[in-house]
Amino acid sequence: MADVITPRSVDYAQWYVDVVRAAKLADYSPVRGCMIILPNGYALWENMRAVLDRMFKETGHENAYFPLFIPQSFLAKEAEHVEGFAKECAVVTHSRLKIDEKGQLIPDPESKLEENLIVRPTSETIIWDAFSRWIQSWRDLPILINQWANVVRWEMRTRLFLRTMEFLWQEGHTAHATREEAIEEALRILDIYTTFAEEYMAMPVIQGVKTPSERFAGAVDTYCIEALMQDGRALQAGTSHFLGQNFAKAFDCKFQNQNNELEYVWATSWGVSTRLIGALVMTHSDDQGLVLPPRLAPTQVVIIPIFRNDVEKSAVLEQAGRIERELKDAGFTVKLDARETHRPGWKFNEYEVQGVPVRVAIGPRDVEQGTVELARRDTRTKETVPQEGLAERVRTLLDDIQQNLLARARAFRDEMTTRVDTYEEFKEVLEEKGGFILAHWDGTPETEARIKEETRATIRCIPLDRDAEALGTREEGRDMLTGKPSKQRVVFAKAY
Amino acid sequence: MADVITPRSVDYAQWYVDVVRAAKLADYSPVRGCMIILPNGYALWENMRAVLDRMFKETGHENAYFPLFIPQSFLAKEAEHVEGFAKECAVVTHSRLKIDEKGQLIPDPESKLEENLIVRPTSETIIWDAFSRWIQSWRDLPILINQWANVVRWEMRTRLFLRTMEFLWQEGHTAHATREEAIEEALRILDIYTTFAEEYMAMPVIQGVKTPSERFAGAVDTYCIEALMQDGRALQAGTSHFLGQNFAKAFDCKFQNQNNELEYVWATSWGVSTRLIGALVMTHSDDQGLVLPPRLAPTQVVIIPIFRNDVEKSAVLEQAGRIERELKDAGFTVKLDARETHRPGWKFNEYEVQGVPVRVAIGPRDVEQGTVELARRDTRTKETVPQEGLAERVRTLLDDIQQNLLARARAFRDEMTTRVDTYEEFKEVLEEKGGFILAHWDGTPETEARIKEETRATIRCIPLDRDAEALGTREEGRDMLTGKPSKQRVVFAKAY
Ligand SMILES: [Zn+2]
Ligand SMILES: [Zn+2]
Repeated sequence: MADVITPRSVDYAQWYVDVVRAAKLADYSPVRGCMIILPNGYALWENMRAVLDRMFKETGHENAYFPLFIPQSFLAKEAEHVEGFAKECAVVTHSRLKIDEKGQLIPDPESKLEENLIVRPTSETIIWDAFSRWIQSWRDLPILINQWANVVRWEMRTRLFLRTMEFLWQEGHTAHATREEAIEEALRILDIYTTFAEEYMAMPVIQGVKTPSERFAGAVDTYCIEALMQDGRALQAGTSHFLGQNFAKAFDCKFQNQNNELEYVWATSWGVSTRLIGALVMTHSDDQGLVLPPRLAPTQVVIIPIFRNDVEKSAVLEQAGRIERELKDAGFTVKLDARETHRPGWKFNEYEVQGVPVRVAIGPRDVEQGTVELARRDTRTKETVPQEGLAERVRTLLDDIQQNLLARARAFRDEMTTRVDTYEEFKEVLEEKGGFILAHWDGTPETEARIKEETRATIRCIPLDRDAEALGTREEGRDMLTGKPSKQRVVFAKAY
Repeated sequence: MADVITPRSVDYAQWYVDVVRAAKLADYSPVRGCMIILPNGYALWENMRAVLDRMFKETGHENAYFPLFIPQSFLAKEAEHVEGFAKECAVVTHSRLKIDEKGQLIPDPESKLEENLIVRPTSETIIWDAFSRWIQSWRDLPILINQWANVVRWEMRTRLFLRTMEFLWQEGHTAHATREEAIEEALRILDIYTTFAEEYMAMPVIQGVKTPSERFAGAVDTYCIEALMQDGRALQAGTSHFLGQNFAKAFDCKFQNQNNELEYVWATSWGVSTRLIGALVMTHSDDQGLVLPPRLAPTQVVIIPIFRNDVEKSAVLEQAGRIERELKDAGFTVKLDARETHRPGWKFNEYEVQGVPVRVAIGPRDVEQGTVELARRDTRTKETVPQEGLAERVRTLLDDIQQNLLARARAFRDEMTTRVDTYEEFKEVLEEKGGFILAHWDGTPETEARIKEETRATIRCIPLDRDAEALGTREEGRDMLTGKPSKQRVVFAKAY
């Protein structure tokens, strides 16, 4: 695997790929657009999943599992949905292979399916078909379901984690008796995503709502969180959709309300994916490799013993082992790398590339003096500290790293957020600085489309309360392009 | 959903479906052969997964994730493998849908794939392709990978959990420098599966090795655990394959050994699936519904308060809440069902159907006397006990239920295991009693095939050490059909 990491200043896109591969997060596969998630990457996903899963369950959601395959006709039932997904579907047409007369393996023509099956790009259709059988009365509501699954969207240009043909995600699907309750649910999940992004990933986000042209295919409103990557491009980190009654109508899902009237059911759906791993990499990592927030790092502390002979070895390993136990007892995930096949310097580099937040090194002199060398990955600084009280010191240090990463990312994001009032300034900032641009927009899809066409910037979102206040976007003004009146600034950026 | 459960004595197959649906473990889906795993079923799978995942990690395995799609040509590289799976493959041939002239949604002919993709029926081929790129030297070995994933095998006749077109499973794939180490690994996993089946599922199994005709397609040896269901039919609960160098040869995966010679890598693969949920149902459940072993039950204790008026309600709920906290603090998963929309009798039935191991009921008289009614699901017995010391009593009771389920299943299995010496007796036992039949076999595939054809019984396995001793199968004798010499008895049964 690649071990030389291209500096960000030279080629940001190549830097990203180099970090992902050097940190052994993912590898390419022979299936175009599909990646292999390596143990380091998967362990990170497991930690993300555990946190999110707990938050979903604490808010009353239950996990379930729906079929991978969706009958082709289901996709067609919601008009916007099929328009959104028909162009990127893996279509299963046969159920057998056979050897033909030339000795070639081919799909057995006799196994051609009566109805083609689509590999799920998302599961609204198959789930609303089930809901329509499960829901009769208001007593059956709400239904709060989540699913951890793989999905497939045929993509032409793919990038490890950020855009892959197959990806892993969670997709929540809920059914409600009222419009208000469904909107509340969609916003509750947006808050969960925000908490997760900021408090666990240490990645600040803007909470917003999408413009109609950027909505999920079939949604009434798409809420989202938008993060800013180090190269000044935005990344949509999670979406939560208020689906109105669109899917209920498509699948004829009605319920008897408390007044004995039949009504269509109200819906939400929401998801985050392995794309978050790409966002994590691009938010914190540096030219030396991966940088991980302690709350998600699969290994929080690595201990590296240093010795040159058997006498030193025995003394160093004894203390290193004791430190390992102490730190594990204190609740940290710890790895003691005592391998003699690799030199300490090689290990220092390896764990730096892999983003382990804290490194403890212990050599003969430390043994004599009752000290260790404590290094932090985020600032790449180190100090010699007493072994006495090490667990408490490591706890403080991990907290500090977690906070520092968020503060650093937030400072960068703030610096890269620019208010502009003219289209000329807009284009200048977009080209020379990048980042989030807060500008007035007249609210029409035509203006939005023209700006996108001319500059490749899109409206990432219209900030919701929290960030509208923080960013001061709720002020009247005039569209920077058309001069028409505007009620608020929106967030523009070039995006992943 | 179905709430009337057909008695086992009337129709065992229907009883099974009724229990699965009444306990809300799974539902049918509109995709033939694919099921929906409902929250109760998925929670059970999550508990199973957590235990197995811990055991895999404790023995040095790491999780990773490989692509869902396998290039058609990969499947063809291992001759037996393609023969085994070609007949049950979902084949992806197109990557887009479009609307044709008649307004119908069809696969876009222009999106026809250059090479068809197979939805993985198992991942040996895609993983050994990766291994061949990752492995150069003995230093790269062993590789111990596990993957939690969905797989698809096109089945004509399906049954909820037991045989479905798509199912969830784990598949381990390991690469080793020596034959011995690979065999050790395959047997280590067989022991993990055995421990899981017996100590968690409370389901006794026979550890054995498959005959050549029952081997996994591409394996040198298939080890397995075989359980016995209540209707006297066997169920293969897990398999662990020693793959020799077959896949290394198919994917040209060589390594430089310590003598600087190039050698093919040695392999294992192993898996258990959501089929285990079906096995669990058929091992312990009864005509009243699901019976779950406490170590896997999503809810171990349900508390049901009983009251007729507000005065009673307040006193009962206060104590029920305190008991809930006590039991949760003691580490149990507890549900207090205080809903007033449902009567206590309805709840008693509901949680019995769902297999909750322990029920605590508390009414006004219990409040006065400082007691509760404690009921166990396995024996359906109950007693009134003091609230004082309840947590300890529940702990003992859960342990006892866990042990009782295993003992009961083992007694049944032992009673249903019969030694026979003549073919006539064999056929008689098979038809009239069922179960495992220990009989002599001459070791030829011809005899095995003839017995299968004539009786529909198959050789489930040749017992390995532990069970060969327990069952006394290692004795010389004569094949019951051909009279040819036999070195040991093997295990015959009709199987799921
Ligand atoms: Zn947005
Ligand atoms: Zn067997």
